[in-house]
Amino acid sequence: MRIKSGNNTNALNQIPEPTLRRLPGYLSFLKSLKINAVEYVSSSQIAANFKMDSTLVTKDLAYTGIKGRTKIGYNVDSLINTIIAFLDFNTHEKAFLFGVGNLGKALIKYQGLRSYGLDIVAGFDIDSSVTNQILNGIKIYPIDEFRDLSRKTDVRLGIITTPDAKAQEIADLMVAWGIKGIWNFTPQTIKVPDNIVVENTSIYSDLAVLLNRLNN
Amino acid sequence: MRIKSGNNTNALNQIPEPTLRRLPGYLSFLKSLKINAVEYVSSSQIAANFKMDSTLVTKDLAYTGIKGRTKIGYNVDSLINTIIAFLDFNTHEKAFLFGVGNLGKALIKYQGLRSYGLDIVAGFDIDSSVTNQILNGIKIYPIDEFRDLSRKTDVRLGIITTPDAKAQEIADLMVAWGIKGIWNFTPQTIKVPDNIVVENTSIYSDLAVLLNRLNN
Repeated sequence: MRIKSGNNTNALNQIPEPTLRRLPGYLSFLKSLKINAVEYVSSSQIAANFKMDSTLVTKDLAYTGIKGRTKIGYNVDSLINTIIAFLDFNTHEKAFLFGVGNLGKALIKYQGLRSYGLDIVAGFDIDSSVTNQILNGIKIYPIDEFRDLSRKTDVRLGIITTPDAKAQEIADLMVAWGIKGIWNFTPQTIKVPDNIVVENTSIYSDLAVLLNRLNN
Repeated sequence: MRIKSGNNTNALNQIPEPTLRRLPGYLSFLKSLKINAVEYVSSSQIAANFKMDSTLVTKDLAYTGIKGRTKIGYNVDSLINTIIAFLDFNTHEKAFLFGVGNLGKALIKYQGLRSYGLDIVAGFDIDSSVTNQILNGIKIYPIDEFRDLSRKTDVRLGIITTPDAKAQEIADLMVAWGIKGIWNFTPQTIKVPDNIVVENTSIYSDLAVLLNRLNN
């Protein structure tokens, strides 16, 4: 869930955020078509699956540069590969993760992230009961070693899964040592310079909507 | 992250979704003020923390029914309690979780959810290596036992953390056996009757935005 993103300097050329958010859903649907040996798909078929207007699907897909063929539609295989490349899901962007509690551990162990382009290469924590452990092949370091490791590597992305109260402190540390993009899983708002990209994922906002709609 | 919610029958009286999404963030901020022994807070102070307009904060908080005092602002303690009650974070809504893989296990172990009003009371899986295990005091049942358990309990909420391809099948089963609200963690779109509430959390959409903004 996104509350608010970091500022960006090239807002004019940006792909609209709603388009970016819908593409992973299309990708999942296309993969299920592929499993069922479907070769071609039309915008209308995709639209029907998501209960959307087909012109919006066509518009979203046009951003990726792919062209469908009249009456035949898109080749499912090509469309899958095009979306993956467009979303940089094949780039294996390296990331450091800060705060190896339950959520941090889950993300480190979650194979899914790797197949969507994100490669967590190290975890950091202050708790000596988790530091120096290796989880899913990924070593957990004491937080003090972040500075040295960030010098030796070219990691641009940092994930915050610390307790809420530690989020800003960790964000400051990340910015100081060269992290360019922050994925914040705490409900805390973090303050960063304008050139740093921030994406907030707060499952509590989703839960708030779900409980409200269930009870009213 | 929300792509699309289920339909709702009483759209006219609904609290706006953006308000519901912002309230958990305010709550986190207010808790940090409380830790620092701050007694009163104004809309402008909250707005400054989130880089928002203060009239929007005032409007959001007005939905909860609380009234701030001129020049003094809101009592931090009262505001925390009011938001918690307003969001039903104190109701301990019971939930079944389907698909006890890495993500499912993480949610079961995640203490955070309980303090935000969600109480996972049982897990279900088809894999005999996890069924009959007890995680964090929560038993994992074979999926075949869902029908019987749903008859014996009054659980209204189901969480889907299955592989993508299983999501619809599980959703159908949930609807058939009385689940009223579904929290879907797969990127798959699920189809349900209009009276069922669906909330989608797809971290891949957040990742797509983050990678795009980082690379462009």
